[in-house]
Amino acid sequence: MELLAVEGIGEVQAGTDLAGLLAEHSENDLGPENVVCVASTIVSKAEDRGVDLADFPAGPRASEIAARLEDLTGEEKDPRFAQAVLEESTEVLIEAPFLLAETRFGHVTVNAGIDRSNTPDTDLLLLPKRPAESAARVRSALPGSPPVVVTDTSGRPFRHGQRGVAIGWAGLPASRDWRGERDRSGRELDVTVQCVVDELAAAANLLMGEGSGGTPAVVARDWEFGPVDGSDEVFRAVETDFVRQALRGWSYVRD
Amino acid sequence: MELLAVEGIGEVQAGTDLAGLLAEHSENDLGPENVVCVASTIVSKAEDRGVDLADFPAGPRASEIAARLEDLTGEEKDPRFAQAVLEESTEVLIEAPFLLAETRFGHVTVNAGIDRSNTPDTDLLLLPKRPAESAARVRSALPGSPPVVVTDTSGRPFRHGQRGVAIGWAGLPASRDWRGERDRSGRELDVTVQCVVDELAAAANLLMGEGSGGTPAVVARDWEFGPVDGSDEVFRAVETDFVRQALRGWSYVRD
Repeated sequence: MELLAVEGIGEVQAGTDLAGLLAEHSENDLGPENVVCVASTIVSKAEDRGVDLADFPAGPRASEIAARLEDLTGEEKDPRFAQAVLEESTEVLIEAPFLLAETRFGHVTVNAGIDRSNTPDTDLLLLPKRPAESAARVRSALPGSPPVVVTDTSGRPFRHGQRGVAIGWAGLPASRDWRGERDRSGRELDVTVQCVVDELAAAANLLMGEGSGGTPAVVARDWEFGPVDGSDEVFRAVETDFVRQALRGWSYVRD
Repeated sequence: MELLAVEGIGEVQAGTDLAGLLAEHSENDLGPENVVCVASTIVSKAEDRGVDLADFPAGPRASEIAARLEDLTGEEKDPRFAQAVLEESTEVLIEAPFLLAETRFGHVTVNAGIDRSNTPDTDLLLLPKRPAESAARVRSALPGSPPVVVTDTSGRPFRHGQRGVAIGWAGLPASRDWRGERDRSGRELDVTVQCVVDELAAAANLLMGEGSGGTPAVVARDWEFGPVDGSDEVFRAVETDFVRQALRGWSYVRD
């Protein structure tokens, strides 16, 4: 399997034809078997998701959250940023000492994935509104309709640092399902569902990097999905997510 | 960047010379620039970490945990398995409806990573005792001393499915640190620490698969770590992990 950085994409603007740009810069790497991984930043820019803080006059809850964060961190916090997070979210899981929220499409991440860097013309960059639809749109416009994964970077409990994750995909199932498969000695496998879109996103992120040297698209060539039927579920509902249940009963207390 | 499955490794036994086996089957893919990713299963087998349930006579806490799990799931639960999890752990974060525990080396995972499949000769396979030391040992015995990552598969909050994660590494820092780096418009980056060993483990897991067709080693060739200094921390301490704090005050209640 090969991971190929798509070089030379440059700045993406609202309305940029992303599929055209990707096709132009990926040479002969596209094709129905190769997975195209695209950073959410350029998808958001093409979809005009750059916004200004002035677009989010703070309501009382946002003002309260910002005041508490300011008090806890000693840093100035703009209540309009908290307002933007609230408007992009269906649930805030942690309010302090940072905002962890579920986006409207089900992704749990800090600040609902709102980016304050990589936005030359606006204050903020929101995640794509419906990344699965973004992936399907890019896919259908690409030659050969290859599988497409829209990636984000995100922190996680238990482990330091961020890693690439998938927030939208089209043309491939999210997971490989190993249920019922057996090991060499005939015992049923413990591991059942492997989230391959997240693994592709993590792999692509090794080449994407951040900042001015960033490469916002990577093609995964010669990867075999394998014979096992997959599932399309990635975002957990609260009913099966015990960590979310625990967070509902928790609030931050400073030492 | 290329990901190459190391083919033909076959069954690994206690005492198998893992570095020798990897060198023999990876042809010309080794070298000081290429990262060798090794599944914890074969590291554990080589380190004689296969054990039997009979080795873990259940104490009162394990019996209580197993009885509660049996009651909740309607499935038979062996209290000796719960005892093995307790002995491999420093803290149990969730007791029901499944066991989530921190291993003695800091990795938070279901059942402390104890595997009930892929173990032809014993009931259970424990994770390597000190995977960082395992990685360093394999590395120093490989020609050219390439970086080595020991991988596991693990579930996570908020997202369905498992993905590859790093549990031990040697010869490379765990993370790239982007703090102080700036984006194209000169603003400081939001994303600061990228856990590259986890991304390498996830990428390798795309080729590893599970079960009888599994490939327990993958070489990542031509990956540039990049110029940014890294950190070696992956496992969070409870003081900086709000999810762990929340789980300490939570217990499962059936609907």
